[in-house]
Amino acid sequence: MKLTSEVADKISAAVDAAFDRQIAFTQELVRHPSLRTREASAQDLLFDAMRERGLEMDRWDLDPAELAQHPGAGPVAVSYENVGNVVGTYHPASEEGRSLILNGHVDVVPEGPHEAWARSPWDAPVIDGWLYGRGSGDMKAGLAANLFAFDAVRAAGFTPTGRIHFQSVVEEECTGNGSLSALQRGYVADAVIIPEPEEDMLVRANVGVIWFTVRVAGHPTHPREMSSGFNAIDAAHHVMERLREVEARWNAEKDEHRYFEDLDHPINFNLGGIRGGDWPSSVPAWCELDVRIALYPGVTADAAWAEIEECLASIDVDESGNPVEAVATRNGFYSEGYVLDEGTDAEEALRGVHREVFGDELRTFTTPGYLDGRVFALYADTPALVYGPISEAIHGYDERVDVESVRRITKSIALFIAEWCGVSVQLHTA
Amino acid sequence: MKLTSEVADKISAAVDAAFDRQIAFTQELVRHPSLRTREASAQDLLFDAMRERGLEMDRWDLDPAELAQHPGAGPVAVSYENVGNVVGTYHPASEEGRSLILNGHVDVVPEGPHEAWARSPWDAPVIDGWLYGRGSGDMKAGLAANLFAFDAVRAAGFTPTGRIHFQSVVEEECTGNGSLSALQRGYVADAVIIPEPEEDMLVRANVGVIWFTVRVAGHPTHPREMSSGFNAIDAAHHVMERLREVEARWNAEKDEHRYFEDLDHPINFNLGGIRGGDWPSSVPAWCELDVRIALYPGVTADAAWAEIEECLASIDVDESGNPVEAVATRNGFYSEGYVLDEGTDAEEALRGVHREVFGDELRTFTTPGYLDGRVFALYADTPALVYGPISEAIHGYDERVDVESVRRITKSIALFIAEWCGVSVQLHTA
Repeated sequence: MKLTSEVADKISAAVDAAFDRQIAFTQELVRHPSLRTREASAQDLLFDAMRERGLEMDRWDLDPAELAQHPGAGPVAVSYENVGNVVGTYHPASEEGRSLILNGHVDVVPEGPHEAWARSPWDAPVIDGWLYGRGSGDMKAGLAANLFAFDAVRAAGFTPTGRIHFQSVVEEECTGNGSLSALQRGYVADAVIIPEPEEDMLVRANVGVIWFTVRVAGHPTHPREMSSGFNAIDAAHHVMERLREVEARWNAEKDEHRYFEDLDHPINFNLGGIRGGDWPSSVPAWCELDVRIALYPGVTADAAWAEIEECLASIDVDESGNPVEAVATRNGFYSEGYVLDEGTDAEEALRGVHREVFGDELRTFTTPGYLDGRVFALYADTPALVYGPISEAIHGYDERVDVESVRRITKSIALFIAEWCGVSVQLHTA
Repeated sequence: MKLTSEVADKISAAVDAAFDRQIAFTQELVRHPSLRTREASAQDLLFDAMRERGLEMDRWDLDPAELAQHPGAGPVAVSYENVGNVVGTYHPASEEGRSLILNGHVDVVPEGPHEAWARSPWDAPVIDGWLYGRGSGDMKAGLAANLFAFDAVRAAGFTPTGRIHFQSVVEEECTGNGSLSALQRGYVADAVIIPEPEEDMLVRANVGVIWFTVRVAGHPTHPREMSSGFNAIDAAHHVMERLREVEARWNAEKDEHRYFEDLDHPINFNLGGIRGGDWPSSVPAWCELDVRIALYPGVTADAAWAEIEECLASIDVDESGNPVEAVATRNGFYSEGYVLDEGTDAEEALRGVHREVFGDELRTFTTPGYLDGRVFALYADTPALVYGPISEAIHGYDERVDVESVRRITKSIALFIAEWCGVSVQLHTA
């Protein structure tokens, strides 16, 4: 069915009616510190929430061996015991409409020093229209929106006629192995929505990401002999400067990459961690850098990685001419970027419902961060609609999500379900 | 008594006679990994070795509260439970000669990655005239030399007539609190020998050392927003560069500091450790630097520290102009440098015995590393003779000490005992 304003109004009203409960559920979800490998209690909550809605439930731990066979998987250094996905499937009585995956990740990035937060990152107060906490925007508000959007469609008296998989995945912040594992398990559909915090916009294009550690090593000594100047921490700085030359070169090529021409600095090499030395009075002999790089869609991870390895292999001395060795090891994302092709039916449907809810045209943009959308776009030929609420300071302190934006996004998803999957009218509410 | 060649020859011969046992004892000592706070088993060995020699034994754990009352003590962040000194005292039947402290530290610095060593740092083989292992040179060879020098005097048929304290102290590599605690306990004498690895030379002057950690902090974010450029690890590099301006200024003043004029670079600021960031895909908000600085004798620790704090307080933005805060906390050495006054009786005595053993004049030099000598020089007005064997790579990989150098230094110490404390001839060997 084509959505009428009347249907849309009913569904919107149903979102409003349950919205306090939706926010309360989101808060409860934020209070579970679902850091990497510690997602289980948050997944319990989502499992129960899906089961209560009558969905067919599936839950499994990720399998490193199976993942290792996929070219888009990230190397795994942690145990996946008790690290798993939850999928709840809605099967219509008769599957007539298009199928849909509503995906979200439950893992969150480390919260950093608590004293830098105005309040506990695991508290989830709503203050002045913002819901706070680590993971509030990225992306527990989205996970809750997926479920409450579905509720609203049904509460308004409609029954979706397409199959819907609700996916709560792990590992989005480090490898992307969660969504990949769900694909390996066989979950596919005609479209996917991932309500990441995207400022009420749709992601048109997205970089790939590779994670690696560089170990920089040389020869230590006593500071009394240090005039020669080798220091692995200084050498590591030099190595990072050399990697940034690669970053600058890739950024200079942005005009060759559609959707990236207008970004100031689409390719970011992030020096995200450093560890070096073991004694203040010993000149450090080694230093490790945790680096995250980005690559344009269309550039293979293998090609980008080869350039990184070539750069590091070319470094034989530090800035002062001391011999130095820099060796990189991949330890997370090994993902390629993607583009959401223009003109898909899925995007058109989203444009329609967005206009209905927001009274404005849907804007698209290019984002220089990793998204699980690539799993669906690259490996399942599925239109991946990454589209979600306004947030601030994701991966930072005092992360927060805009509550009214969450309400509107929930309405958009609810209307999308009705529009994309189709609905039948429930007799008792007709 | 003034040493005759005959007496000297007898004592030297006694050193030679026991030298295999001395090296075996040194090897056993090296096999105890007496890293900071883990010195107890090595101290057990030394305690037993001293007791077997009939010394009056004393052993106590360091007391942070008592140390905190001393201006030369370093702040303590570790527990001192089971971290203690061993002192064995030789009392002559009638104390007629001058008293002596034979001091050495049992703690060693971390060994670093084992794969960088040709063999285990806790193995102690003798290969081609070198004894290997962490602590072999710095300074277990010296600790053993103190005891075997004493043995040689007695084995040669002489009985020292001055009191001798054999001190095996902890914390020399991080705070200097071990020797300070021995002083607080009341151990004083007319001279002290510390056989640190000093290339068969005597230390004339020595820097002070301060340890501190600098926490550099700013605001983290997601790499997709990082174009503004704040990164705490980069900011920390900038902070270290600013500290190195202080280092350059102090080095430029070397002509004003006697005994330091001829050193290329007497003041070394060592960046010995770094830790920053907690997630490769988060821009790091904090970074910690472990820094060790040196100061000239005559400069108070308070004055040096004030300059460091002033430098850090003046840093309000990083190289790119992003706000940054750098705060230092002292966490180890807070020590001043010292000069061994020229012309003391103790030095003259050492010059004599050195000439006897080495057939060459004793050379003095200035060392830019911390030494416990400062405890005796600054706080007990005691001539501190820091004088010991040839070594390589202390605080580095494949640390080693020159076995024949150890033999000669042992002879020097033995002859010094006889010369300084005086000896009587044992009746049964007369």
